[in-house]
Amino acid sequence: MMEEMKNRFVAIKYNINGAPNECDFEIKSETICLSARSKEVIVKNLYVSVDPYQLNRMKAHSSSQAAISFATAITPGQGIDTYGVGRVVSSGRSDLAKDDLVVGLLTWGEYTLAEPGRLLNKLDPMDLPLPYYVGPLGFSGVTAYGGFYEVCKPKKGESVFVSAASGSVGSLVGQYAKLFGCHVVGCAGSQLKVDLLKEKLGFDDAFNYKDETDLKSALKRYFPEGIDIYFDNVGGKMLEAAVANMNTFGRVAVCGAISEYTGGGRKASPDMLDVVYKRITIQGFLAADYLKCYADFISTTAEHLRTGKMQGLSDISYGVESVPSAFVGLFRGDNIGKRIVQIADE
Amino acid sequence: MMEEMKNRFVAIKYNINGAPNECDFEIKSETICLSARSKEVIVKNLYVSVDPYQLNRMKAHSSSQAAISFATAITPGQGIDTYGVGRVVSSGRSDLAKDDLVVGLLTWGEYTLAEPGRLLNKLDPMDLPLPYYVGPLGFSGVTAYGGFYEVCKPKKGESVFVSAASGSVGSLVGQYAKLFGCHVVGCAGSQLKVDLLKEKLGFDDAFNYKDETDLKSALKRYFPEGIDIYFDNVGGKMLEAAVANMNTFGRVAVCGAISEYTGGGRKASPDMLDVVYKRITIQGFLAADYLKCYADFISTTAEHLRTGKMQGLSDISYGVESVPSAFVGLFRGDNIGKRIVQIADE
Repeated sequence: MMEEMKNRFVAIKYNINGAPNECDFEIKSETICLSARSKEVIVKNLYVSVDPYQLNRMKAHSSSQAAISFATAITPGQGIDTYGVGRVVSSGRSDLAKDDLVVGLLTWGEYTLAEPGRLLNKLDPMDLPLPYYVGPLGFSGVTAYGGFYEVCKPKKGESVFVSAASGSVGSLVGQYAKLFGCHVVGCAGSQLKVDLLKEKLGFDDAFNYKDETDLKSALKRYFPEGIDIYFDNVGGKMLEAAVANMNTFGRVAVCGAISEYTGGGRKASPDMLDVVYKRITIQGFLAADYLKCYADFISTTAEHLRTGKMQGLSDISYGVESVPSAFVGLFRGDNIGKRIVQIADE
Repeated sequence: MMEEMKNRFVAIKYNINGAPNECDFEIKSETICLSARSKEVIVKNLYVSVDPYQLNRMKAHSSSQAAISFATAITPGQGIDTYGVGRVVSSGRSDLAKDDLVVGLLTWGEYTLAEPGRLLNKLDPMDLPLPYYVGPLGFSGVTAYGGFYEVCKPKKGESVFVSAASGSVGSLVGQYAKLFGCHVVGCAGSQLKVDLLKEKLGFDDAFNYKDETDLKSALKRYFPEGIDIYFDNVGGKMLEAAVANMNTFGRVAVCGAISEYTGGGRKASPDMLDVVYKRITIQGFLAADYLKCYADFISTTAEHLRTGKMQGLSDISYGVESVPSAFVGLFRGDNIGKRIVQIADE
């Protein structure tokens, strides 16, 4: 007997080229069959990730996104892939059974029909909360870990600046950098976030960029000896100000450029004379390039979370209907830590 | 007996913050004593280098230049250091004798008083023309060699784009890249230069950027499969267009940004989304960082020049009075190959 079920999922109504609004999204329904065919797996989504980069997939197709599969354009009316944690409803794969917890590429919806070959692995949560596997132990975590250790190539005692420092990736980068023995300053967009960076996450210092009229001078104040590493999540003017304050042989890891995603902010024009004379390296990267460090990353980070040396900040809303507002809010800086939607009870 | 002599040298009258004019310079005279004191060396300058980066030293002091000694600000009225070849007049150093040829840090003048510790080495020209030691075997050469091999990290068969490709560094980078087995396209500012790149220097293709209204489309035409390496001498819009056409894991070596030196051109705003999604690395460098390859560089390059596998293009004017016009002309793209002033007969 084939059980049928309604699946509700989020879709965009049309391509989005500027700042997103909730009315750009719709909740659609489809009827799905809850018994998997050969090699397919049907997953009940529990926690799904909500990330700024998804906006780039919602734009009219651009060349940069053609480079990698998970950044391909999102089609209006269709389901939207995202990283998440779920539970197997039915499985055509020998390595997954009904009721197994899984982590991988799910959807902004109630269920995911995982075709053969889709990224989906059995999850042993090792007594850690499931949302951690979307945040510090998920793609945000491996982004922070690979970006900090492999792209920034830190040395003990170096000065590290992190923008969007209370966000999903920035909050982890700052903590890795402190544990590694760096001097870490972060910026964020509210006093609450600044306090949290200093008091809860152990940043050496932090500031609210909205209070600063001159970002170059602000960074000069926080880094009188210059910046060795800038972990860039925002692009725009902050990138320019950081480059102006970099030390010789400084490194910029470009993780994202959220200030440039909506087309509203000015694009960064870092001073190329600084880049040459100070021999600065500006390097873009994606977490997917650092999956070779995945085992190290998971064991190190899980241990730090378990012993309290690292904090996993999650900002969770409930229900598939809350995905659009959770997503739109990212571009207003609403979130503190990893933005996640809990789709169903565990 | 102490012989005294008049030394004429070039100085700036005041700091220069925009495009330079000949009237910004003056020829000054001083009386020098032609017998060196302890550890000093007096050099009669023969060939001196004329390079765009000197303009940055003529500006009001900027932070980027504080990073390295040879980029320190030039003081109005004072002599100006430059790389060159000369002959020893008198020496207080045991490793240098009267009439030795030397290469190192000279001045835009008739004589150089080389204080102890100044970069100055005995030169054995190995039957190659002396101007080569200012160009392809001098700082331009080590810039091209270190920049291409160490910064660009080329692989055989990769596609290389070089801007200012008929200039002192670009012309060498293109030739190294061809000898290494890359596909090489250059751009320059006249049909004459374009013909020279293709017919004399062996570039696979070349174009006149002044004929192109849309640089992104132009590069798409010349690199239908994308660019793996961009050796950037110009900055500005060309850097943006190159980043837009880079392949995944592409590398940009930022050697200079001549279009941005005079403050007239627009600063580059490379698309940070391209940088992230295509994992592009943009890296500034200076020849001084690659002196560890110096022995390799000299032996390889001298051999290529001797066997005709590489061409050393020099653009030589005569007499210390010609330095200002030679320098000013660089910013109009007057030069083909390495711009050198011959100060005195060999």
